[in-house]
Amino acid sequence: MRHVRHVVCINTNCRLEEPPKPNVTLCPKCGTVLDVVYDYEYLKSAVDRDALEASGERSFWRYRQFMPVEDTSPAPPLRVGWTPMYKRHNVVGLSTLFIKDDGQNPTGSLKDRPSALCVVKAREAGSGSVACASTGNAASSLAGNAAAAGLKSFIFVPERAPKGKLAQLLIFGATVICVRGDYQDTFKLSAEAISKYGWYSRNAAINPYLVEGKKTVALEICEQLGWQAPDWVAVSVGDGCTLAAVYKGFYDFRQMGFIDKIPRLLSVQATGCFPINKALREGGDIVPMAENTLADSIAVGVPRNGTKALRAIQASNGLTIEVTDEEILAAMRELGATCGVFGEPAGVAGLAGLKKAVAQGQIGQDEKVVAIITGNGLKDTANALTAAGEPISSAPDMDSLLKELGNRGIKGL
Amino acid sequence: MRHVRHVVCINTNCRLEEPPKPNVTLCPKCGTVLDVVYDYEYLKSAVDRDALEASGERSFWRYRQFMPVEDTSPAPPLRVGWTPMYKRHNVVGLSTLFIKDDGQNPTGSLKDRPSALCVVKAREAGSGSVACASTGNAASSLAGNAAAAGLKSFIFVPERAPKGKLAQLLIFGATVICVRGDYQDTFKLSAEAISKYGWYSRNAAINPYLVEGKKTVALEICEQLGWQAPDWVAVSVGDGCTLAAVYKGFYDFRQMGFIDKIPRLLSVQATGCFPINKALREGGDIVPMAENTLADSIAVGVPRNGTKALRAIQASNGLTIEVTDEEILAAMRELGATCGVFGEPAGVAGLAGLKKAVAQGQIGQDEKVVAIITGNGLKDTANALTAAGEPISSAPDMDSLLKELGNRGIKGL
Repeated sequence: MRHVRHVVCINTNCRLEEPPKPNVTLCPKCGTVLDVVYDYEYLKSAVDRDALEASGERSFWRYRQFMPVEDTSPAPPLRVGWTPMYKRHNVVGLSTLFIKDDGQNPTGSLKDRPSALCVVKAREAGSGSVACASTGNAASSLAGNAAAAGLKSFIFVPERAPKGKLAQLLIFGATVICVRGDYQDTFKLSAEAISKYGWYSRNAAINPYLVEGKKTVALEICEQLGWQAPDWVAVSVGDGCTLAAVYKGFYDFRQMGFIDKIPRLLSVQATGCFPINKALREGGDIVPMAENTLADSIAVGVPRNGTKALRAIQASNGLTIEVTDEEILAAMRELGATCGVFGEPAGVAGLAGLKKAVAQGQIGQDEKVVAIITGNGLKDTANALTAAGEPISSAPDMDSLLKELGNRGIKGL
Repeated sequence: MRHVRHVVCINTNCRLEEPPKPNVTLCPKCGTVLDVVYDYEYLKSAVDRDALEASGERSFWRYRQFMPVEDTSPAPPLRVGWTPMYKRHNVVGLSTLFIKDDGQNPTGSLKDRPSALCVVKAREAGSGSVACASTGNAASSLAGNAAAAGLKSFIFVPERAPKGKLAQLLIFGATVICVRGDYQDTFKLSAEAISKYGWYSRNAAINPYLVEGKKTVALEICEQLGWQAPDWVAVSVGDGCTLAAVYKGFYDFRQMGFIDKIPRLLSVQATGCFPINKALREGGDIVPMAENTLADSIAVGVPRNGTKALRAIQASNGLTIEVTDEEILAAMRELGATCGVFGEPAGVAGLAGLKKAVAQGQIGQDEKVVAIITGNGLKDTANALTAAGEPISSAPDMDSLLKELGNRGIKGL
């Protein structure tokens, strides 16, 4: 990987540099998470905006020069990334809003980006199997991308995991191990098994490469906006990895001179679970919190990548905001009815926070803003039903229909 | 529409030709469905394969010259079509199989193609509202594409419609009218209301333009295979519209000289509901059947476009086959585990039939075959769970895990 200098420990008291081997995990000296460092001077000599625009590759592999993969590594089969970005007027109080719909990824979430990258790194490490502990989008995207690439996947879930969430995993042929215990037991057993069997670990808490897959959503935003960085990007925040990744993407392209600024990041968490936002506003360390929100993908009381996220918010001169479950469901409805995009609760939390920030005057109505929708609403139809409201009931005749529509002031055209 | 000659009644005893107005429905003389006729000589002077390949449009609008829309009509916002096609070896008994994953459309099904076209025709007709009677993919795709384009949608559903299916409609801001009656009552009330209010009708039984949107899946197959028509295309068949549309797409490109043959079509229906296949094999008219299959999108006992479908199977020298629900669920698992693609039951029925036809020697293992996956598995996780099987249960320690994996012969790598 000529374009990667090394991986470096993000602990400012350590800063150990290591070679970017495919199976690096945490810092061997202090146990902190690592970060990939690129050789931007080399990259400047190898790629420019015109070359990217001329790429016929309509997936996130158009940015393979900005990902820590070997030149010779084949891209896995599924079409990940290069998701659509839609422009809308007069939504959530903004004169213009850009919606980046990452629910259009093959298994339905942004997590297909890191999972597809993980499959490549597993192959580079010589492993034919990947593993993680998760019930959510990380697991389903890993299982799907592994299946497509001919790798085995081993997914550890706690016994309380809803059966519906397991369906996608099992259909993708994953070996799903339902651990009779809580999430901590599950994680611990997965770590032991990964160590024993030599499976490749897809764990955002320890694998420094995953964030490099996630960041491609920011690279796409730059290119899809004609290389004009937006003023703001709104992101739903759980463990903080996606927010940190979005920053890294803009950082890369700023270093390359492809954009002239890094957008301000809006970190949106749930009022029932906001340890990262709390730490940022109050200073000090991240303190664990309860996980009281229906937006399950961002219900993370003990964020494992909080430091990177905190730095990203600060470095971008960003903003933190929390939203209630009701505000999340309202955003789901507004997004669907105005944009034809169906997002899952955690996927639209960023949009809900954006609406609030605009209403409170923290973001101006004429600023250029992108909201990333991180997951597809079909992943969680139960909560969508809560948001959706009731249909109109009518007897099967026109008189009844006219009365029912009339009662609601619906004129029909 | 310089490229469209007229619409023609498909009744061979009628053959009435009409001007292609945006709101034409059935033949005004005999009540039969109409077909759009193109001016291929004009089209040959206007477009060739190189021009299509050079198109930067990565949606089904790259084929707008082959759709009955005015040159000046803007394309609606959602990214519909240009879905991925994956190549796999040694799946369902074929040495090479091509999977066209139309579940990757914005609302999760092939129906986004006709629904997006419907939105354009509604605008051309001067209507700000669209309507249909459906609980399935036709309705959700119409609601989503209408919302994105700023049109109102009115969806009529029978009261027995599962609540989960209504969620997506309501999120897209559709006015959903739940009719206290059966599907016939619902359809009748929708027709009356459409007539009274002047809504634009999205009803595949009467609107001749919808098939012209659906056919684009075949156009994409041609281009994605480098203009080599496959030997076979396997299609799940319910009301017959999609099968007829696939034929029409290949027919168009054959007329243009873009491909040198029309592939043979494999018409796959459920053993619990196969009126089209039955009529083809036994001759004579289509006789209504019960609807006994879990693949709800193809559970159509009274197909409304059966004639077009029958002609398509015959004209392509095609084949009919039926599959059990168990075979459908098995195909869902095989597709997921080998390709990383999650299809809904009706969406994978074509693949299940293909497997059966190969096993029976009706399709050779080295023939070039495309299976179209018409809908996303996330649309129906209940049936996916039935297909998926059970996870492995383990106590939270390595000894238990080793025992459980060992019992199943799982070695881990």
